Amino acid sequence: MAATPAPIEKVSIIVSKGSLEGVYPGLIMANGARAEGMECNLFFTFFGLDAIHRKRMEHLKVATVGNPGMHLPTLIGGLPGMSALATHMMTKKMEELDIPPVGEFMEMIADTGAGIYACKASVDMFHLEKNDFIPQLDDIITVGEFYEMAAGGQIIFT
Amino acid sequence: MAATPAPIEKVSIIVSKGSLEGVYPGLIMANGARAEGMECNLFFTFFGLDAIHRKRMEHLKVATVGNPGMHLPTLIGGLPGMSALATHMMTKKMEELDIPPVGEFMEMIADTGAGIYACKASVDMFHLEKNDFIPQLDDIITVGEFYEMAAGGQIIFT
Amino acid sequence: MAATPAPIEKVSIIVSKGSLEGVYPGLIMANGARAEGMECNLFFTFFGLDAIHRKRMEHLKVATVGNPGMHLPTLIGGLPGMSALATHMMTKKMEELDIPPVGEFMEMIADTGAGIYACKASVDMFHLEKNDFIPQLDDIITVGEFYEMAAGGQIIFT
Repeated sequence: MAATPAPIEKVSIIVSKGSLEGVYPGLIMANGARAEGMECNLFFTFFGLDAIHRKRMEHLKVATVGNPGMHLPTLIGGLPGMSALATHMMTKKMEELDIPPVGEFMEMIADTGAGIYACKASVDMFHLEKNDFIPQLDDIITVGEFYEMAAGGQIIFT
Repeated sequence: MAATPAPIEKVSIIVSKGSLEGVYPGLIMANGARAEGMECNLFFTFFGLDAIHRKRMEHLKVATVGNPGMHLPTLIGGLPGMSALATHMMTKKMEELDIPPVGEFMEMIADTGAGIYACKASVDMFHLEKNDFIPQLDDIITVGEFYEMAAGGQIIFT
Repeated sequence: MAATPAPIEKVSIIVSKGSLEGVYPGLIMANGARAEGMECNLFFTFFGLDAIHRKRMEHLKVATVGNPGMHLPTLIGGLPGMSALATHMMTKKMEELDIPPVGEFMEMIADTGAGIYACKASVDMFHLEKNDFIPQLDDIITVGEFYEMAAGGQIIFT
């Protein structure tokens, strides 16, 4: 660690989960990257596609079962309404922090110049098409094209 | 971003989850890397070991609870058979896409020259041995050896 | 792949989950990095904050539902006590492997010179403060500061 290393110039963030707590970390990492002036591209794959799906993006939920971080007994976490309650609580906390809902946040991040990409294999698997996604979507690309785009930066899989 | 950055030459993909939707992204990233001619090694750790376990690899399941991406109410997702149903549906979609089942996919990826490694600490924790894994397994290595192997490339933790 | 690539000098590991099986991989990757003499910083965000929370860190649990890797039918995984049982089993296996409980492990890793950081946005979201965390915490930093610290190394999101 002699000289100061060159700053990170680019991050390519893969979002692979569709729960609220699975999507936000990637968006916050993307927002932080753009705030630092770094190039940033988001690549949505598998259930992560929900986060850029026109109709689903505003209905992402917090997972209350299979998520011991929620500190809820499993049978209570599984009751109807608990996921909605946890989702409501997290949404409220996000608001207090001035972190916008997913749709608005995505728009904000795209406006800063970040790229928004969907994974072709996943889009095909879920029988979706460009029209199902938010207008900020730049393109539907293959994993190979993603790697080409990510060259010279860091890949972060969330 | 003056000059074009050098392409990524190597990816080292860590697979740490044992659900079907936890395993496929790493395999698809690996397959895409090899298709681009990049060096690629897969490192299986924790529950990810199931994906290279001779007997378990064909029985990986989709998580239907704790996975809001499935769009199932929790109590329904928890009913006996729902995980099997979701697993059947995902498997069928994968087939339509010409993405093979995990065992066949792993074999295909190994045949392209990707390295297949198991994490020593995890293998010991689950009381497994080399014989429990698919013949394509190259070696059981420590985390330190993994880092040495990953030098000069990108690490992707899935 | 002509010359041997330079070894990895630094890893910056993001811990974003609060389940036992979500926290250990990051700690094991950190411990392995320090053992190799690499610079290593841990950045705890979202539910991962539980792993450095003074009161919660000794009560992390294994997720038995939404985790097909546990090989438990969902309705059984959801019974009261099953998560405790799985947690007890994993803790016991960790002991056999000489992998210490989370609190002790964190202390050990910090003693080797790894940095321990909490994500400011998450700390604010959960209404926590420096005092809630273990004394080994080096600082509460923003995502931007994390990227600066991670320059010249690998980012691993777990």
